[in-house]
Amino acid sequence: MVIFYTLFLFLTILFNVSNGEYKFQTKYINVPIDHFSFVKNDVYKMRYLVNDSYWQSGGPIFFYTGNEGPIDVFAQNTGFLWEIAPKFNAYIVFAEHRYYGESLPFGNTSFSSPEKLGYLNSPQALADYAYLIKNIQEDLSQKNEGWRSKVIAFGGSYGGMLSAWMRLKYPGSVYGALASSAPIFEFNGLTKCDKFNQVLASVFQTADYEPFCVTNIKKTWSTIRELTNNDDGKSWLSSTLKLCNPLKSSGDVKKLIDWLKDVYANLAMVNYPYPTSFLAPLPAYPVKAFCEKLSREYNGKPLIQELTKALSVYTNYTGTTKCVNINSTSSNVDETAWDYQACTEMIMPMCVQENKMFESSPWNFTQYAEDCFKQFGVKPSRDDLAIIEYGGRDATYTNVIFTNGLLDPWSSGGFWPSTSTAYAILIPNAAHHLELRASNANDPNEVVYARKQIQDIISAWITPYSKFK
Amino acid sequence: MVIFYTLFLFLTILFNVSNGEYKFQTKYINVPIDHFSFVKNDVYKMRYLVNDSYWQSGGPIFFYTGNEGPIDVFAQNTGFLWEIAPKFNAYIVFAEHRYYGESLPFGNTSFSSPEKLGYLNSPQALADYAYLIKNIQEDLSQKNEGWRSKVIAFGGSYGGMLSAWMRLKYPGSVYGALASSAPIFEFNGLTKCDKFNQVLASVFQTADYEPFCVTNIKKTWSTIRELTNNDDGKSWLSSTLKLCNPLKSSGDVKKLIDWLKDVYANLAMVNYPYPTSFLAPLPAYPVKAFCEKLSREYNGKPLIQELTKALSVYTNYTGTTKCVNINSTSSNVDETAWDYQACTEMIMPMCVQENKMFESSPWNFTQYAEDCFKQFGVKPSRDDLAIIEYGGRDATYTNVIFTNGLLDPWSSGGFWPSTSTAYAILIPNAAHHLELRASNANDPNEVVYARKQIQDIISAWITPYSKFK
Repeated sequence: MVIFYTLFLFLTILFNVSNGEYKFQTKYINVPIDHFSFVKNDVYKMRYLVNDSYWQSGGPIFFYTGNEGPIDVFAQNTGFLWEIAPKFNAYIVFAEHRYYGESLPFGNTSFSSPEKLGYLNSPQALADYAYLIKNIQEDLSQKNEGWRSKVIAFGGSYGGMLSAWMRLKYPGSVYGALASSAPIFEFNGLTKCDKFNQVLASVFQTADYEPFCVTNIKKTWSTIRELTNNDDGKSWLSSTLKLCNPLKSSGDVKKLIDWLKDVYANLAMVNYPYPTSFLAPLPAYPVKAFCEKLSREYNGKPLIQELTKALSVYTNYTGTTKCVNINSTSSNVDETAWDYQACTEMIMPMCVQENKMFESSPWNFTQYAEDCFKQFGVKPSRDDLAIIEYGGRDATYTNVIFTNGLLDPWSSGGFWPSTSTAYAILIPNAAHHLELRASNANDPNEVVYARKQIQDIISAWITPYSKFK
Repeated sequence: MVIFYTLFLFLTILFNVSNGEYKFQTKYINVPIDHFSFVKNDVYKMRYLVNDSYWQSGGPIFFYTGNEGPIDVFAQNTGFLWEIAPKFNAYIVFAEHRYYGESLPFGNTSFSSPEKLGYLNSPQALADYAYLIKNIQEDLSQKNEGWRSKVIAFGGSYGGMLSAWMRLKYPGSVYGALASSAPIFEFNGLTKCDKFNQVLASVFQTADYEPFCVTNIKKTWSTIRELTNNDDGKSWLSSTLKLCNPLKSSGDVKKLIDWLKDVYANLAMVNYPYPTSFLAPLPAYPVKAFCEKLSREYNGKPLIQELTKALSVYTNYTGTTKCVNINSTSSNVDETAWDYQACTEMIMPMCVQENKMFESSPWNFTQYAEDCFKQFGVKPSRDDLAIIEYGGRDATYTNVIFTNGLLDPWSSGGFWPSTSTAYAILIPNAAHHLELRASNANDPNEVVYARKQIQDIISAWITPYSKFK
């Protein structure tokens, strides 16, 4: 179950995409399935989205390094890029990450075996992007009077890790990068494993200054355990929480607990100052809305009843939800791909030590590896592959802007402080990559200011934008 | 045949290793055969050499990124590293490149099929080194009072490309790099394909100011073609040149011509100021010794007779060679591995345009790719893989010292000029990575000065060397 925990925390940008505001052309390119051997010489069709309506000869390429989901979703939820592209005469590209959306190396069978899943990892995805960039630049240079367009990478969350790593690993492809809310240090030994949950608790603790919110949540864990000691309790809890599938086993109870933790993390990540249609539709500042329901001290069954009301902020903001499905925090996500990544290279240890909102739980890599083996037939042999590949805190980042919202639990693994070659911008009152979203009248001033800083830095990178070499 | 040409030019450091001057422990580590997929989870035994006798807690790690040959050969011929290690209290590591020496991923069958050869490439080799460095650092940190030792990468020729790329791709693993005579720009579109042969001709032209040397060599090409028009001529030429296998076909003649080009390139690369035991034992300044035999104008058969005398500088300096083998410029090299690399990612276009020493010949990628397919069953689909992977001239190198001897034809593809973050040191009167060899009384002052510069830079990188993080 641990692996689902990590996954769900990370799947952050799954908005409603149907009424897309931003327009693009959908394109495909054949890229090698394996960039790092000549054993497998097959190619696959990678999807990318393009908008050239703002581009003028000499302008840069704004290149979104797609993360763990269909790329059109990210295109619709990265309004900041679209807003500034016209000012920079930028060519817009959103590249889809392999094994997500339509970019399936083996089509519908891509997830059918360890052999087929084996090419799903970030170094291969970065190599895809480098390959695509080379091709786009060759294409553009014909219209570009021979000049090479500078590429600025953009990304949020895992996509932000990729944009930073793109600059790290392919500095010849990417001139600069905005890595928004990218927890590049959320790996073993780089960040204490309880830090994420510390930040998460502090967000709930300070939301609207409801002192009972976190203490109530903390009591729910033992209350749930006590209630589910017997079948009557399980039944009462299932019915009170309006679960679609009543709790039957201790496994189900564990699943409920993990789901609750995921919901809290999601609430904090999308604690945006205006309503959003997320994994579920949510009000503005959903953590505050949640905590308002737990503003007095509760115990026992009344605590669970009040928790149910609070949870409805997340599960039933529209008032149309019939029952609560704890198998997922979203209905429109294929979690397999990220689970696999979390089981191989993206192993981010999570634990709880002395915490006002959560009970203690250790990080157990052995258990984690066994769960992975059960699910995918692969067992992570070591938990530092991403550190070896990307260098952890010893890597030298140049021309990268790292942003972190202080209301975002993932800020725990973010890059900070600034160095002589990389910018670290902390944004108070901002949740997960808020500044990457479109401007909104309710944005806090700090976000408005961060966006201005970012534009100034990008402007310095690409001025005179018409000449690179 | 083109591929052999590229290979032989590159195999530069194959000295006599039997009487090794420098002492080390031989170690082995299991590393993944494929770092970039989870399809193949096998490991292989990679060899590396260690000397910890100069190391003191807090000292750096000097890490030689092995190139295309057995690592003990490089250990014995990188005297500069051994000379400065005691001054820096450095821990010495020489890492063997996969598919060379004893580091064979599939043992004796490593070269038996395209599937087994497929994991031979520089990104996998760099990942091997990063993996090894992580393990060594973990081991050392126990003796190191918890401090991380800074790693400085060293390499010459292809090994120098790897040391520079190691810093480029793994800046968290390697703090700085010396890339000696590393032709990182010898790829399509980065350097004109005739530049190598231009430099080569100028070395022969200026050697001891023998104006007839290059004009005589240039005449040999048509003379050889005319003489080998008929069997009598082939026979005469074979006997005059003392070939082990007389020329029978036009293919043999082409082989002879390629071999001569290789010999000239080798002579220039090892145009050292003192005798060396190279692919063959050689006198000091072998290009001068060669050209002295061609100091007057010759034509026709007398030209070939004088050429034979000149070639004996390379083929028979000891006076014990019975006959000349044009199948190889060295008897103790397995060329297969480098040929494969040259056929896949390390495609370095070579051509001749207006040249005082060589006849014109174009770069023909189609022909090259077909030759590769015949030899290995792999066909390079594009000639810019190394540019995509390493970024060509757009990559930002930081903390790298690039050296290039101006007597070295590979300087044609070298890094120059210095940038704000990387040093480019040109060394007049120096051949291929001369400064990486042990000090010698005959070293030109420029080499002595370059070694001092390099030490000063390394010193700045690692002071205070006892603290990294």
